[in-house]
Amino acid sequence: MKFNIEFTAGIIIIGNEILSGRTVDKNTSFIATWLGDKGISVEEVRVIPDKEEIIIKTVNDLRKKFAYIFTTGGIGPTHDDITAESISKVFNQKYQYHSEAYKILEEFYKDQDFNSGRKKMAKMPENATLIPNPKTFAAGFYVENVFVLPGVPSILQAMLPLLDKNIITGKKILSISIDTKLRESSLANDLSIIQDRFNSVDIGSYPYFKHQPGTILVLRSVNKIEIEKCEKEIREVLIKLSQ
Amino acid sequence: MKFNIEFTAGIIIIGNEILSGRTVDKNTSFIATWLGDKGISVEEVRVIPDKEEIIIKTVNDLRKKFAYIFTTGGIGPTHDDITAESISKVFNQKYQYHSEAYKILEEFYKDQDFNSGRKKMAKMPENATLIPNPKTFAAGFYVENVFVLPGVPSILQAMLPLLDKNIITGKKILSISIDTKLRESSLANDLSIIQDRFNSVDIGSYPYFKHQPGTILVLRSVNKIEIEKCEKEIREVLIKLSQ
Repeated sequence: MKFNIEFTAGIIIIGNEILSGRTVDKNTSFIATWLGDKGISVEEVRVIPDKEEIIIKTVNDLRKKFAYIFTTGGIGPTHDDITAESISKVFNQKYQYHSEAYKILEEFYKDQDFNSGRKKMAKMPENATLIPNPKTFAAGFYVENVFVLPGVPSILQAMLPLLDKNIITGKKILSISIDTKLRESSLANDLSIIQDRFNSVDIGSYPYFKHQPGTILVLRSVNKIEIEKCEKEIREVLIKLSQ
Repeated sequence: MKFNIEFTAGIIIIGNEILSGRTVDKNTSFIATWLGDKGISVEEVRVIPDKEEIIIKTVNDLRKKFAYIFTTGGIGPTHDDITAESISKVFNQKYQYHSEAYKILEEFYKDQDFNSGRKKMAKMPENATLIPNPKTFAAGFYVENVFVLPGVPSILQAMLPLLDKNIITGKKILSISIDTKLRESSLANDLSIIQDRFNSVDIGSYPYFKHQPGTILVLRSVNKIEIEKCEKEIREVLIKLSQ
Protein backbone atom coordinates (compact mmCIF):
# COMPACT_ATOMS: atom_id res chain seq x y z
CA MET A 1 0.00 0.00 0.00
CA LYS A 2 1.64 3.23 -1.12
CA PHE A 3 0.95 6.46 0.72
CA ASN A 4 1.07 9.98 -0.61
CA ILE A 5 3.41 12.07 1.58
CA GLU A 6 0.44 14.41 1.94
CA PHE A 7 -1.30 11.76 4.02
CA THR A 8 1.46 10.80 6.41
CA ALA A 9 2.16 11.63 10.03
CA GLY A 10 4.87 11.19 12.65
CA ILE A 11 4.34 11.02 16.41
CA ILE A 12 6.85 12.20 19.02
CA ILE A 13 6.26 10.97 22.56
CA ILE A 14 8.17 13.21 24.93
CA GLY A 15 8.63 11.78 28.38
CA ASN A 16 11.06 9.98 30.64
CA GLU A 17 8.20 7.99 32.14
CA ILE A 18 7.78 6.02 28.90
CA LEU A 19 11.52 5.52 28.41
CA SER A 20 11.96 4.28 31.98
CA GLY A 21 9.28 1.65 31.44
CA ARG A 22 7.11 3.00 34.25
CA THR A 23 4.29 3.93 31.88
CA VAL A 24 2.96 2.16 28.78
CA ASP A 25 2.34 4.69 26.00
CA LYS A 26 -1.31 4.66 25.00
CA ASN A 27 -1.30 7.92 23.05
CA THR A 28 0.28 6.43 19.92
CA SER A 29 -2.54 3.95 19.51
CA PHE A 30 -5.22 6.60 20.04
CA ILE A 31 -3.68 9.16 17.68
CA ALA A 32 -2.91 6.56 15.01
CA THR A 33 -6.46 5.18 15.07
CA TRP A 34 -7.92 8.69 14.83
CA LEU A 35 -5.61 9.49 11.92
CA GLY A 36 -6.27 6.16 10.20
CA ASP A 37 -9.96 7.00 10.07
CA LYS A 38 -8.98 10.11 8.15
CA GLY A 39 -6.77 8.24 5.71
CA ILE A 40 -3.57 9.50 7.33
CA SER A 41 -0.93 6.89 7.93
CA VAL A 42 1.50 7.13 10.86
CA GLU A 43 4.91 6.30 9.41
CA GLU A 44 7.16 6.74 12.45
CA VAL A 45 6.98 7.16 16.21
CA ARG A 46 9.86 8.34 18.36
CA VAL A 47 9.96 8.27 22.14
CA ILE A 48 12.49 10.76 23.49
CA PRO A 49 13.49 12.23 26.86
CA ASP A 50 12.65 15.71 28.18
CA LYS A 51 15.87 17.21 26.82
CA GLU A 52 15.71 20.39 24.81
CA GLU A 53 18.34 19.64 22.18
CA ILE A 54 16.82 16.22 21.50
CA ILE A 55 13.27 17.61 21.22
CA ILE A 56 14.44 20.28 18.77
CA LYS A 57 16.42 17.85 16.63
CA THR A 58 13.66 15.25 16.53
CA VAL A 59 10.92 17.73 15.61
CA ASN A 60 13.14 19.19 12.90
CA ASP A 61 13.96 15.74 11.51
CA LEU A 62 10.35 14.62 11.32
CA ARG A 63 8.43 17.76 10.38
CA LYS A 64 10.09 17.77 6.97
CA LYS A 65 9.48 14.06 6.37
CA PHE A 66 5.76 13.89 7.11
CA ALA A 67 2.69 16.03 6.52
CA TYR A 68 1.70 16.13 10.20
CA ILE A 69 3.62 15.83 13.44
CA PHE A 70 1.97 15.22 16.79
CA THR A 71 3.91 15.62 20.01
CA THR A 72 2.63 14.46 23.38
CA GLY A 73 3.89 15.40 26.81
CA GLY A 74 5.90 18.13 28.47
CA ILE A 75 3.41 21.02 28.40
CA GLY A 76 2.47 21.07 32.08
CA PRO A 77 3.50 23.48 34.84
CA THR A 78 6.67 21.84 36.20
CA HIS A 79 10.42 22.18 35.62
CA ASP A 80 10.52 19.11 33.37
CA ASP A 81 7.86 20.54 31.01
CA ILE A 82 10.03 22.02 28.29
CA THR A 83 8.17 21.10 25.11
CA ALA A 84 6.60 24.52 24.39
CA GLU A 85 9.88 26.36 24.82
CA SER A 86 11.68 23.80 22.64
CA ILE A 87 9.08 24.14 19.88
CA SER A 88 9.54 27.92 19.98
CA LYS A 89 13.20 27.36 19.23
CA VAL A 90 12.36 24.94 16.39
CA PHE A 91 10.47 27.75 14.64
CA ASN A 92 12.70 30.62 15.81
CA GLN A 93 9.74 32.22 17.53
CA LYS A 94 9.62 34.05 20.84
CA TYR A 95 8.44 31.95 23.78
CA GLN A 96 5.86 34.15 25.42
CA TYR A 97 2.42 34.29 27.04
CA HIS A 98 -0.42 33.60 24.62
CA SER A 99 -3.06 36.16 25.63
CA GLU A 100 -6.05 33.88 25.10
CA ALA A 101 -4.42 30.91 26.83
CA TYR A 102 -3.48 33.20 29.71
CA LYS A 103 -7.02 34.54 30.04
CA ILE A 104 -8.53 31.05 30.13
CA LEU A 105 -6.17 29.97 32.91
CA GLU A 106 -6.61 33.19 34.86
CA GLU A 107 -10.35 32.64 34.81
CA PHE A 108 -9.98 28.97 35.79
CA TYR A 109 -7.65 29.69 38.72
CA LYS A 110 -9.40 32.87 39.86
CA ASP A 111 -10.05 31.64 43.38
CA GLN A 112 -6.70 29.94 43.70
CA ASP A 113 -3.10 30.98 43.51
CA PHE A 114 -2.38 31.75 39.82
CA ASN A 115 1.30 31.00 40.42
CA SER A 116 4.20 31.01 37.98
CA GLY A 117 3.86 27.27 37.26
CA ARG A 118 0.24 27.76 36.25
CA LYS A 119 1.08 30.85 34.23
CA LYS A 120 3.80 28.89 32.45
CA MET A 121 1.10 26.73 30.81
CA ALA A 122 0.06 29.83 28.81
CA LYS A 123 3.54 30.28 27.36
CA MET A 124 4.08 29.11 23.79
CA PRO A 125 5.65 30.16 20.50
CA GLU A 126 4.47 33.67 19.56
CA ASN A 127 2.58 32.55 16.45
CA ALA A 128 1.02 29.44 17.97
CA THR A 129 -2.66 28.68 17.41
CA LEU A 130 -4.45 27.27 20.44
CA ILE A 131 -5.86 23.77 20.70
CA PRO A 132 -8.51 24.17 23.42
CA ASN A 133 -8.47 21.83 26.40
CA PRO A 134 -12.05 21.17 27.47
CA LYS A 135 -10.91 19.14 30.47
CA THR A 136 -8.25 20.98 32.44
CA PHE A 137 -8.05 24.28 30.51
CA ALA A 138 -4.29 24.33 29.85
CA ALA A 139 -4.33 24.56 26.05
CA GLY A 140 -2.22 22.76 23.51
CA PHE A 141 -1.18 24.54 20.33
CA TYR A 142 0.12 24.14 16.84
CA VAL A 143 2.65 25.89 14.66
CA GLU A 144 2.64 25.01 10.96
CA ASN A 145 2.33 21.20 10.82
CA VAL A 146 3.41 20.50 14.42
CA PHE A 147 0.57 19.78 16.85
CA VAL A 148 1.55 19.93 20.51
CA LEU A 149 -0.62 17.92 22.91
CA PRO A 150 -0.43 16.88 26.56
CA GLY A 151 0.75 13.48 27.73
CA VAL A 152 -2.18 12.56 29.98
CA PRO A 153 -4.27 10.23 27.76
CA SER A 154 -7.70 11.35 29.00
CA ILE A 155 -6.90 15.00 28.24
CA LEU A 156 -5.32 14.23 24.87
CA GLN A 157 -8.38 12.19 23.93
CA ALA A 158 -10.66 15.13 24.73
CA MET A 159 -8.56 17.54 22.67
CA LEU A 160 -7.74 15.55 19.55
CA PRO A 161 -11.26 15.56 18.04
CA LEU A 162 -11.16 19.38 18.11
CA LEU A 163 -8.54 19.13 15.37
CA ASP A 164 -10.88 17.31 12.97
CA LYS A 165 -11.00 20.31 10.66
CA ASN A 166 -7.24 20.88 10.64
CA ILE A 167 -6.41 17.62 8.93
CA ILE A 168 -6.72 17.25 5.17
CA THR A 169 -8.10 13.76 4.99
CA GLY A 170 -6.99 11.15 2.52
CA LYS A 171 -8.95 8.15 1.38
CA LYS A 172 -10.09 6.27 4.43
CA ILE A 173 -7.83 3.32 5.19
CA LEU A 174 -10.04 0.24 5.25
CA SER A 175 -9.08 -2.54 7.59
CA ILE A 176 -10.29 -6.13 7.83
CA SER A 177 -9.19 -8.50 10.61
CA ILE A 178 -9.40 -12.26 10.32
CA ASP A 179 -8.80 -14.42 13.39
CA THR A 180 -7.67 -17.94 12.60
CA LYS A 181 -6.70 -20.77 14.91
CA LEU A 182 -4.00 -21.80 12.45
CA ARG A 183 -0.36 -21.26 13.33
CA GLU A 184 1.26 -18.40 11.45
CA SER A 185 3.87 -20.75 10.06
CA SER A 186 1.18 -22.90 8.36
CA LEU A 187 -0.10 -19.87 6.47
CA ALA A 188 3.16 -18.26 5.47
CA ASN A 189 3.54 -19.68 1.96
CA ASP A 190 -0.04 -19.08 0.83
CA LEU A 191 -0.10 -15.58 2.30
CA SER A 192 3.08 -14.66 0.51
CA ILE A 193 1.58 -15.71 -2.84
CA ILE A 194 -1.58 -13.70 -2.18
CA GLN A 195 0.39 -10.64 -1.03
CA ASP A 196 2.37 -10.70 -4.29
CA ARG A 197 -0.89 -10.57 -6.26
CA PHE A 198 -2.43 -7.68 -4.27
CA ASN A 199 -0.09 -4.69 -4.41
CA SER A 200 -2.66 -2.27 -3.06
CA VAL A 201 -3.38 -4.32 0.08
CA ASP A 202 -1.07 -4.63 3.09
CA ILE A 203 -1.42 -8.05 4.69
CA GLY A 204 -0.14 -8.14 8.26
CA SER A 205 0.14 -11.38 10.16
CA TYR A 206 0.19 -11.38 13.97
CA PRO A 207 0.62 -14.64 15.84
CA TYR A 208 -0.71 -14.98 19.37
CA PHE A 209 -0.50 -17.60 22.07
CA LYS A 210 -3.46 -17.72 24.41
CA HIS A 211 -4.16 -21.27 25.61
CA GLN A 212 -3.50 -22.32 22.01
CA PRO A 213 -1.73 -20.65 19.14
CA GLY A 214 -3.53 -18.63 16.50
CA THR A 215 -2.96 -15.81 14.06
CA ILE A 216 -4.72 -12.57 13.38
CA LEU A 217 -4.47 -11.41 9.79
CA VAL A 218 -5.02 -7.73 9.19
CA LEU A 219 -5.69 -6.43 5.69
CA ARG A 220 -5.33 -2.69 5.10
CA SER A 221 -6.03 -0.78 1.91
CA VAL A 222 -7.72 2.33 0.57
CA ASN A 223 -9.16 0.21 -2.28
CA LYS A 224 -12.48 -1.36 -1.31
CA ILE A 225 -12.74 -3.76 -4.27
CA GLU A 226 -9.19 -5.05 -3.89
CA ILE A 227 -9.36 -5.54 -0.12
CA GLU A 228 -12.58 -7.56 -0.47
CA LYS A 229 -11.13 -9.70 -3.26
CA CYS A 230 -8.03 -10.28 -1.17
CA GLU A 231 -10.12 -11.21 1.88
CA LYS A 232 -12.06 -13.75 -0.19
CA GLU A 233 -8.87 -15.44 -1.39
CA ILE A 234 -7.47 -15.57 2.13
CA ARG A 235 -10.67 -17.09 3.51
CA GLU A 236 -10.54 -19.78 0.82
CA VAL A 237 -6.96 -20.60 1.79
CA LEU A 238 -7.91 -20.79 5.47
CA ILE A 239 -10.70 -23.26 4.68
CA LYS A 240 -8.32 -25.35 2.60
CA LEU A 241 -5.67 -25.36 5.35
CA SER A 242 -8.16 -26.20 8.10
CA GLN A 243 -9.29 -29.38 6.38
CA MET B 1 21.03 12.43 36.12
CA LYS B 2 23.90 11.92 33.66
CA PHE B 3 24.36 8.57 31.96
CA ASN B 4 27.54 7.03 30.71
CA ILE B 5 27.11 6.08 27.03
CA GLU B 6 28.22 2.63 28.13
CA PHE B 7 24.97 2.22 30.01
CA THR B 8 22.49 3.38 27.39
CA ALA B 9 20.13 1.54 25.08
CA GLY B 10 17.81 2.19 22.18
CA ILE B 11 14.71 0.17 21.28
CA ILE B 12 13.38 -0.30 17.75
CA ILE B 13 9.80 -1.56 17.50
CA ILE B 14 9.28 -2.97 14.01
CA GLY B 15 5.68 -3.43 13.03
CA ASN B 16 2.82 -1.90 11.13
CA GLU B 17 0.38 -3.08 13.82
CA ILE B 18 1.78 -0.54 16.29
CA LEU B 19 1.88 2.29 13.73
CA SER B 20 -1.70 1.64 12.66
CA GLY B 21 -2.90 1.94 16.25
CA ARG B 22 -4.31 -1.57 16.28
CA THR B 23 -1.89 -2.75 18.96
CA VAL B 24 -0.50 -0.95 22.01
CA ASP B 25 3.23 -1.61 22.33
CA LYS B 26 4.00 -3.33 25.61
CA ASN B 27 7.51 -4.44 24.79
CA THR B 28 9.12 -1.05 25.39
CA SER B 29 7.91 -0.98 28.97
CA PHE B 30 9.08 -4.55 29.63
CA ILE B 31 12.51 -4.09 28.07
CA ALA B 32 13.06 -0.69 29.71
CA THR B 33 12.15 -2.01 33.16
CA TRP B 34 14.47 -5.00 32.71
CA LEU B 35 17.28 -2.71 31.58
CA GLY B 36 16.61 -0.17 34.35
CA ASP B 37 17.20 -2.88 36.94
CA LYS B 38 20.63 -3.35 35.39
CA GLY B 39 21.43 0.36 35.43
CA ILE B 40 20.94 0.70 31.68
CA SER B 41 18.91 3.68 30.60
CA VAL B 42 16.74 3.59 27.45
CA GLU B 43 17.41 6.88 25.68
CA GLU B 44 15.27 6.51 22.56
CA VAL B 45 12.55 4.32 21.10
CA ARG B 46 11.57 4.28 17.46
CA VAL B 47 8.53 2.58 15.99
CA ILE B 48 8.98 1.89 12.30
CA PRO B 49 7.20 -0.04 9.54
CA ASP B 50 8.25 -3.38 8.04
CA LYS B 51 10.27 -1.74 5.27
CA GLU B 52 13.79 -2.89 4.61
CA GLU B 53 15.44 0.44 3.86
CA ILE B 54 13.90 2.01 6.97
CA ILE B 55 14.94 -0.87 9.22
CA ILE B 56 18.52 -0.69 7.93
CA LYS B 57 18.76 3.08 8.31
CA THR B 58 17.23 3.10 11.80
CA VAL B 59 19.46 0.31 13.13
CA ASN B 60 22.51 2.03 11.67
CA ASP B 61 21.53 5.38 13.19
CA LEU B 62 20.98 3.99 16.67
CA ARG B 63 23.64 1.28 17.04
CA LYS B 64 26.35 3.92 17.00
CA LYS B 65 24.56 6.19 19.47
CA PHE B 66 23.85 3.69 22.24
CA ALA B 67 25.59 0.75 23.88
CA TYR B 68 22.73 -1.67 23.24
CA ILE B 69 19.99 -1.88 20.64
CA PHE B 70 16.95 -4.11 21.01
CA THR B 71 14.65 -4.72 18.07
CA THR B 72 11.24 -6.38 18.39
CA GLY B 73 9.10 -7.85 15.66
CA GLY B 74 9.45 -9.15 12.14
CA ILE B 75 11.23 -12.47 12.75
CA GLY B 76 8.31 -14.81 12.11
CA PRO B 77 7.58 -17.04 9.11
CA THR B 78 5.55 -14.73 6.84
CA HIS B 79 6.23 -12.39 3.93
CA ASP B 80 6.16 -9.30 6.18
CA ASP B 81 8.89 -10.69 8.47
CA ILE B 82 11.98 -9.03 7.06
CA THR B 83 13.94 -8.05 10.16
CA ALA B 84 16.56 -10.83 10.04
CA GLU B 85 17.36 -10.20 6.39
CA SER B 86 17.56 -6.45 7.00
CA ILE B 87 19.93 -6.92 9.95
CA SER B 88 22.15 -9.10 7.73
CA LYS B 89 22.44 -6.15 5.37
CA VAL B 90 23.22 -3.76 8.25
CA PHE B 91 26.30 -5.86 9.05
CA ASN B 92 27.14 -6.90 5.48
CA GLN B 93 26.71 -10.52 6.41
CA LYS B 94 25.19 -13.35 4.41
CA TYR B 95 21.55 -14.12 5.27
CA GLN B 96 21.57 -17.88 5.67
CA TYR B 97 20.36 -20.85 7.71
CA HIS B 98 21.84 -20.97 11.20
CA SER B 99 22.56 -24.67 11.68
CA GLU B 100 21.57 -24.79 15.35
CA ALA B 101 18.40 -22.73 14.84
CA TYR B 102 17.50 -25.00 11.91
CA LYS B 103 18.04 -28.17 13.96
CA ILE B 104 15.83 -26.89 16.80
CA LEU B 105 12.98 -26.10 14.41
CA GLU B 106 13.38 -29.35 12.46
CA GLU B 107 13.05 -31.24 15.73
CA PHE B 108 10.05 -29.16 16.83
CA TYR B 109 8.19 -29.60 13.54
CA LYS B 110 9.18 -33.21 12.99
CA ASP B 111 5.63 -34.51 12.78
CA GLN B 112 4.35 -31.54 10.82
CA ASP B 113 5.18 -29.91 7.54
CA PHE B 114 8.59 -28.23 7.95
CA ASN B 115 7.69 -25.80 5.18
CA SER B 116 9.66 -22.90 3.79
CA GLY B 117 7.97 -20.37 6.12
CA ARG B 118 9.05 -22.39 9.14
CA LYS B 119 12.54 -22.89 7.74
CA LYS B 120 12.79 -19.15 7.20
CA MET B 121 12.75 -18.62 10.96
CA ALA B 122 16.21 -20.27 11.06
CA LYS B 123 17.67 -17.76 8.61
CA MET B 124 19.80 -14.98 10.08
CA PRO B 125 23.08 -13.13 9.56
CA GLU B 126 25.94 -15.62 9.15
CA ASN B 127 27.73 -14.56 12.36
CA ALA B 128 24.62 -14.27 14.51
CA THR B 129 24.57 -15.76 18.02
CA LEU B 130 21.30 -17.40 18.99
CA ILE B 131 18.95 -16.15 21.68
CA PRO B 132 17.02 -19.31 22.58
CA ASN B 133 13.22 -19.22 22.55
CA PRO B 134 11.95 -21.49 25.33
CA LYS B 135 8.33 -20.94 24.29
CA THR B 136 7.91 -21.45 20.55
CA PHE B 137 11.44 -22.48 19.53
CA ALA B 138 12.02 -19.92 16.77
CA ALA B 139 15.19 -18.28 18.09
CA GLY B 140 16.14 -14.65 18.22
CA PHE B 141 19.74 -13.63 17.73
CA TYR B 142 22.30 -10.91 18.21
CA VAL B 143 25.11 -9.44 16.17
CA GLU B 144 27.51 -7.11 17.96
CA ASN B 145 25.32 -4.82 20.09
CA VAL B 146 22.04 -5.43 18.22
CA PHE B 147 19.65 -7.87 19.91
CA VAL B 148 16.84 -9.13 17.71
CA LEU B 149 13.70 -10.31 19.49
CA PRO B 150 10.17 -11.30 18.48
CA GLY B 151 7.18 -8.96 18.73
CA VAL B 152 4.82 -11.23 20.68
CA PRO B 153 5.16 -9.97 24.27
CA SER B 154 4.83 -13.34 26.01
CA ILE B 155 7.65 -14.81 23.92
CA LEU B 156 9.86 -11.75 24.28
CA GLN B 157 9.35 -11.86 28.04
CA ALA B 158 10.48 -15.49 28.14
CA MET B 159 13.59 -14.76 26.08
CA LEU B 160 14.88 -11.50 27.53
CA PRO B 161 16.06 -12.92 30.90
CA LEU B 162 18.31 -15.31 28.97
CA LEU B 163 20.37 -12.26 28.03
CA ASP B 164 21.15 -11.37 31.64
CA LYS B 165 24.80 -12.25 31.16
CA ASN B 166 25.18 -10.32 27.91
CA ILE B 167 24.59 -6.92 29.45
CA ILE B 168 27.34 -5.07 31.27
CA THR B 169 25.35 -3.60 34.10
CA GLY B 170 25.74 -0.08 35.39
CA LYS B 171 24.81 1.17 38.81
CA LYS B 172 21.24 0.21 39.50
CA ILE B 173 18.86 3.09 38.83
CA LEU B 174 16.93 3.66 42.03
CA SER B 175 13.39 4.90 41.72
CA ILE B 176 11.01 6.32 44.32
CA SER B 177 7.37 7.14 43.54
CA ILE B 178 5.32 9.55 45.62
CA ASP B 179 1.58 9.81 45.04
CA THR B 180 0.05 13.12 46.13
CA LYS B 181 -3.47 14.41 45.85
CA LEU B 182 -2.13 17.87 45.11
CA ARG B 183 -2.46 19.33 41.63
CA GLU B 184 0.79 19.38 39.67
CA SER B 185 0.47 23.14 39.23
CA SER B 186 0.52 23.68 43.02
CA LEU B 187 3.84 21.86 43.28
CA ALA B 188 5.62 23.31 40.29
CA ASN B 189 7.54 26.11 42.00
CA ASP B 190 8.80 24.12 44.97
CA LEU B 191 9.74 21.14 42.81
CA SER B 192 11.73 23.35 40.51
CA ILE B 193 13.75 24.71 43.45
CA ILE B 194 14.42 21.19 44.76
CA GLN B 195 15.38 19.90 41.29
CA ASP B 196 17.95 22.69 40.98
CA ARG B 197 19.57 21.57 44.22
CA PHE B 198 19.73 17.87 43.32
CA ASN B 199 21.68 17.47 40.09
CA SER B 200 22.08 13.72 40.46
CA VAL B 201 18.34 13.08 40.84
CA ASP B 202 15.76 13.22 38.04
CA ILE B 203 12.41 14.41 39.37
CA GLY B 204 9.53 13.55 37.06
CA SER B 205 6.05 14.87 37.68
CA TYR B 206 3.03 13.06 36.23
CA PRO B 207 -0.43 14.50 36.76
CA TYR B 208 -3.46 12.22 36.65
CA PHE B 209 -7.19 12.72 36.72
CA LYS B 210 -9.14 9.88 38.28
CA HIS B 211 -12.23 11.16 40.06
CA GLN B 212 -10.03 13.95 41.38
CA PRO B 213 -6.71 15.32 40.23
CA GLY B 214 -3.40 14.20 41.69
CA THR B 215 0.24 13.93 40.79
CA ILE B 216 2.74 11.13 40.90
CA LEU B 217 6.30 12.26 41.48
CA VAL B 218 9.02 9.87 40.36
CA LEU B 219 12.57 10.32 41.59
CA ARG B 220 15.32 8.45 39.74
CA SER B 221 18.99 8.35 40.56
CA VAL B 222 21.94 6.01 40.93
CA ASN B 223 22.91 7.82 44.15
CA LYS B 224 21.16 6.34 47.19
CA ILE B 225 22.06 9.11 49.63
CA GLU B 226 21.00 11.91 47.31
CA ILE B 227 17.70 10.31 46.25
CA GLU B 228 16.73 9.80 49.90
CA LYS B 229 17.64 13.38 50.82
CA CYS B 230 15.65 14.63 47.86
CA GLU B 231 12.65 12.48 48.83
CA LYS B 232 12.75 13.90 52.36
CA GLU B 233 12.69 17.48 51.09
CA ILE B 234 9.83 16.76 48.72
CA ARG B 235 7.77 15.11 51.47
CA GLU B 236 8.29 18.19 53.66
CA VAL B 237 7.05 20.41 50.85
CA LEU B 238 4.00 18.18 50.32
CA ILE B 239 3.12 18.44 54.02
CA LYS B 240 3.52 22.23 53.90
CA LEU B 241 1.34 22.52 50.78
CA SER B 242 -1.36 20.21 52.13
CA GLN B 243 -1.92 22.37 55.21
